[in-house]
Amino acid sequence: MGSTGSELRALHRELDVATSGEGFTDITRPVADWLSKIGAGVGMLTLFVRHTSASLTVQENTDPDVQADLVDVLRRLAPETARYRHDLEGRDDMPAHIRSMLTTTSLSVPVAEGRAVLGTWQAIYLIEHRAQPHRRRVFMMFMGALAHGT
Amino acid sequence: MGSTGSELRALHRELDVATSGEGFTDITRPVADWLSKIGAGVGMLTLFVRHTSASLTVQENTDPDVQADLVDVLRRLAPETARYRHDLEGRDDMPAHIRSMLTTTSLSVPVAEGRAVLGTWQAIYLIEHRAQPHRRRVFMMFMGALAHGT
Amino acid sequence: MGSTGSELRALHRELDVATSGEGFTDITRPVADWLSKIGAGVGMLTLFVRHTSASLTVQENTDPDVQADLVDVLRRLAPETARYRHDLEGRDDMPAHIRSMLTTTSLSVPVAEGRAVLGTWQAIYLIEHRAQPHRRRVFMMFMGALAHGT
Repeated sequence: MGSTGSELRALHRELDVATSGEGFTDITRPVADWLSKIGAGVGMLTLFVRHTSASLTVQENTDPDVQADLVDVLRRLAPETARYRHDLEGRDDMPAHIRSMLTTTSLSVPVAEGRAVLGTWQAIYLIEHRAQPHRRRVFMMFMGALAHGT
Repeated sequence: MGSTGSELRALHRELDVATSGEGFTDITRPVADWLSKIGAGVGMLTLFVRHTSASLTVQENTDPDVQADLVDVLRRLAPETARYRHDLEGRDDMPAHIRSMLTTTSLSVPVAEGRAVLGTWQAIYLIEHRAQPHRRRVFMMFMGALAHGT
Repeated sequence: MGSTGSELRALHRELDVATSGEGFTDITRPVADWLSKIGAGVGMLTLFVRHTSASLTVQENTDPDVQADLVDVLRRLAPETARYRHDLEGRDDMPAHIRSMLTTTSLSVPVAEGRAVLGTWQAIYLIEHRAQPHRRRVFMMFMGALAHGT
C-alpha cells in the first residue's frame, strides 16, 4: 500500500497530437515525459480529448495488427456507408462521433513513483476517427504529490 | 502548464436529472453552475451515474441530429426485439444495461480557471436508455483548489 | 454538498483478481474492504486494469442473467469466429482486446463517508474476456481525506 502525507498539487498542460488520419497514435511517451518533467510522484493523471471525433483507449502495444483490427471493428460498428441524419460535415463525421461514444473521451490513470501504472503490454492511444489528418488537443491533468515533496 | 500550491479540497453534490424517456439530456449547464457556486479553481470533476440504465457521454453540442443518430446506433447495438435471458423488468431493461456498458457510468473532466475544459463543440450528456421518463441521480465530485485559495 | 478542509492523501494498492475464464467477477466487496481498511473519508477512487484482455464495468447486481446477456453481447460484437489480422495468441485474444476497448480499462468512483457512492443496484465488475482463467491485477488509487482527518 502506498501512502503520502505530502501536500497534493494540481498541474495541467495541453498536449498537441498530430494524427495522420483514421487510426491510432501512441501518446504514452509524451505523457510520460510530461509526468517526468513536472516531477510527479504519486497521484492521478487524467487525459481528456477536447474533440468529439477523436478519443482514447488503452491497448496492446506490441503487434500493430491489433490496431488495424480495432480500426476494422470501429468501421463495422459505425460504417460510413450507413444513412445518418447528420451528414453536413462529411461522410466520416457522424461515424467519428459514434466511435468516440463507444470508446472514451476521458481516461484516468493512477501514477506511482512518477509513472503511469500501465501494465507491461499497455500503451495509451489517441484514436483519430476522421479520414484526414488533424491536430488534436489532449488536456493532461496531474493531481497528487510531487516526487520530492514540497 | 498550470500549477497550484493551494490546499486541495473535495466537495460533492448530487444532481437530479429529469429525463423525458429514451434520449440525451444536456447537463453541461447545471454542472458548470455547481462548479461556479462552490468556487472551483483547478482540479478534477468526476460525474457518476447511480443507475445501470442511464449513462454519460461527451458529444457534439450543435446539431441535434447527432443525438438522434447516436440513439439509433444504441438501438441497433442493443435492440429491444432481441432475445434476452433477463426480461422480467420490461423489454427496454436489458437493452438499457447493454447501452450503459458500451458508453460510460463515470466521467472525469479536468477543471481549470473554474471551468470544465470542454472543447468548443463538446457538451456533457446524460443518456436515458429506458423508454419512460425517469429521475436520474448523478453524483458530482470536485477535487482540487478553490479559485481564491484558502 | 460535502466539503473537507482536511489534508488530502493518495493511497494505493494492487488487487489480485482470480477469474474463472470468460465472464464477470464482482469486485465490489474487496474494493469496499480496502477503502474501509485505509480509513477513507471523502475523495475519489480509481480502478485501473493492467491488462488489455480484461476490463471493468458498473452493472446490475441482482440478476445473474444480466451478466450472461452482457457476455452474449460482447461475443456478438467481437466474435471469435471472425477473421482478424492478429491471431498468433489464440482465437480469443483479439476479441478480448475489442471487448476491452468497448468497455473500460479505468473506472473512477466518488467516495463519501468512506464508501463508493454506488447506487442500490450497482456493483463493480471485472470482465474477463479470455476463455481461460487468469489472475488479473487491478490497481486501486484512493485520493482524498481520511475519515478521522490527519
